[in-house]
Amino acid sequence: MHLVSVDLGDRSYPIYIGENLFTDAHHLTPHIRGRQICVVTNETVAPLYLEQLTAALADYQVDSIVLPDGESYKNLQTLNKIFDGLLEKRHNRTTTLIALGGGVVGDMTGFAAACYQRGVDFIQIPTTLLSMVDSSVGGKTGVNHALGKNMIGAFYQPRCVLADTTVLETLPERELSAGIAEVIKYGLICDYDFFVWLETNMPALMKRDKAALAYAVEHSCQNKALVVAQDEHEGGIRAILNLGHTFGHAIETAQGYGNWLHGEAVGAGMAMAADLSWRRGAINDAELSRIYKLLSAAKLPTKAPFDMTDEKFLQLMGVDKKVLDGRLRLVLLESMGKAIVTSDIDSEMLTKTFAACR
Amino acid sequence: MHLVSVDLGDRSYPIYIGENLFTDAHHLTPHIRGRQICVVTNETVAPLYLEQLTAALADYQVDSIVLPDGESYKNLQTLNKIFDGLLEKRHNRTTTLIALGGGVVGDMTGFAAACYQRGVDFIQIPTTLLSMVDSSVGGKTGVNHALGKNMIGAFYQPRCVLADTTVLETLPERELSAGIAEVIKYGLICDYDFFVWLETNMPALMKRDKAALAYAVEHSCQNKALVVAQDEHEGGIRAILNLGHTFGHAIETAQGYGNWLHGEAVGAGMAMAADLSWRRGAINDAELSRIYKLLSAAKLPTKAPFDMTDEKFLQLMGVDKKVLDGRLRLVLLESMGKAIVTSDIDSEMLTKTFAACR
Repeated sequence: MHLVSVDLGDRSYPIYIGENLFTDAHHLTPHIRGRQICVVTNETVAPLYLEQLTAALADYQVDSIVLPDGESYKNLQTLNKIFDGLLEKRHNRTTTLIALGGGVVGDMTGFAAACYQRGVDFIQIPTTLLSMVDSSVGGKTGVNHALGKNMIGAFYQPRCVLADTTVLETLPERELSAGIAEVIKYGLICDYDFFVWLETNMPALMKRDKAALAYAVEHSCQNKALVVAQDEHEGGIRAILNLGHTFGHAIETAQGYGNWLHGEAVGAGMAMAADLSWRRGAINDAELSRIYKLLSAAKLPTKAPFDMTDEKFLQLMGVDKKVLDGRLRLVLLESMGKAIVTSDIDSEMLTKTFAACR
Repeated sequence: MHLVSVDLGDRSYPIYIGENLFTDAHHLTPHIRGRQICVVTNETVAPLYLEQLTAALADYQVDSIVLPDGESYKNLQTLNKIFDGLLEKRHNRTTTLIALGGGVVGDMTGFAAACYQRGVDFIQIPTTLLSMVDSSVGGKTGVNHALGKNMIGAFYQPRCVLADTTVLETLPERELSAGIAEVIKYGLICDYDFFVWLETNMPALMKRDKAALAYAVEHSCQNKALVVAQDEHEGGIRAILNLGHTFGHAIETAQGYGNWLHGEAVGAGMAMAADLSWRRGAINDAELSRIYKLLSAAKLPTKAPFDMTDEKFLQLMGVDKKVLDGRLRLVLLESMGKAIVTSDIDSEMLTKTFAACR
């Protein structure tokens, strides 16, 4: 078993990474204070893992809430269903919520824990690679509003995270690739050695080799934890975690959420960020080529859809091309394994990147 | 102008107390970081003070959200109206929310600030005596759920509080008395000198003498701040702030919310707590009599309604008389100006208190 410590003072917590973790209550019980547990999961994950988890926690009052699956349910109405369940079963301030699912379940359960009786404990058992390497570190919780994604939420840290690589066996292939996009991101923004490791080990990851997956999850979480520890509430350096996300969000929005997975859009977005970084002279031809090759090996897109015109990109990125100067902040590469946030973007270069990446 | 500092480390903030404070932007502007402000108020308060406040903040983008008045609107649906308004007017992470109203407006605005984009600044301008002396200190924010009051919320501190005694001129008399109930509470639980001051100055308070009101608000906030600083998240000592509240909540629930004001129920509840404390020998006849006299001088009830049977009280307090031992925790007086939390309650004495106090 691997262990990553997320170091946030009195809000610090461990991430346990390995096989068959959640069916063994010993990893969970030291982090559960009371006698009540409420497992929050969704319709897709419940049939696969809810019974096993509940059985492992037979010494507790375990209730469960099964939400509909999908980003479109990540809102205040669904959140209220969690509160309904907790109150109906009389959960008190010592209860522990367990998020069993991907990013949506984790975000909503964490936010419900932040708000229920002004804050109760929660534990994350992420069931997708993306949620293991991304949302299990950083404490971002919340729901969407009709007028904006993730507009309502809290920074709230779990008591622990169990990243059980066993559950990745049932993950659809596209979701595996989408998770790997964020893994590659850590190599690009702050860990060149990890990038090199990924170049060698991508075939093993794609074959779901348990040891390779555990190594990738561990190093991703370590890297994110280092960044978040410096900037818990996203005032500065934490922004580098958004490499590829500005382009990616534009693609996701244009294509409609759910058509492109978040990680797929981030994959294409990172390719675009790499292209623009290359045009700025930050990386050379060979390095750009290695990035494209690694994204392709993870079966990730490296281009935006052909109908993403310059105008559509700029509009969805919230900027007007005519007044681009200083208005657009992007995360770009300064070198392999090092990212910067800059608003010094040359509009000619950006136009060339758009043209090259669709 | 009086100043109380609420000392909570990097979440510390000042409470300014005095006349004509909120019409002078100088008290507010040092606590506003960005250029956007959203004033949240209700239908009752808006016609009285919204225009004055907005005029004082002419240098900012000031938007306002006017909520319906009343505890029955303190829920997630109304909260979402605040988010609607903020997103429609494109408020960003540097916005400041200003709560202009009583406890309900303060609780909802504070919770909206805690959640909007995972946390933005907020300022409280309480317009009732109760909210000046109670909800302006302690950081409890939140909304009700159909299955329980204040079940969804956050501990979230304002940047500053303006307790402007001028606005108490328009406060209905029953609400003035209800606020004084909490003022008397501070004298009883932790400040005997203040209790003695209240015995002398109750007539001035009831006549809304500005200097007396400012003194009472200052000392109430100071006392609450001292308690909260020791126990921000209500793990222990903070519970003494609930003197009279267990009995009071039973009365409020039985009578239906809105028939008895919260402060009125707390008044009767404190009379009951005093009666039980006297039966336990913690205070003497003369002291009990002084408490009753002070509550009466504030035009507060000292008895529960006649239809509040023992059974109704116990049921609403969540206990079964047959298994009372150790199950009921009450805040009682240990002496004048000192409260304790105890579950060592004699059921015979409790029965006598019920009989004496209806």
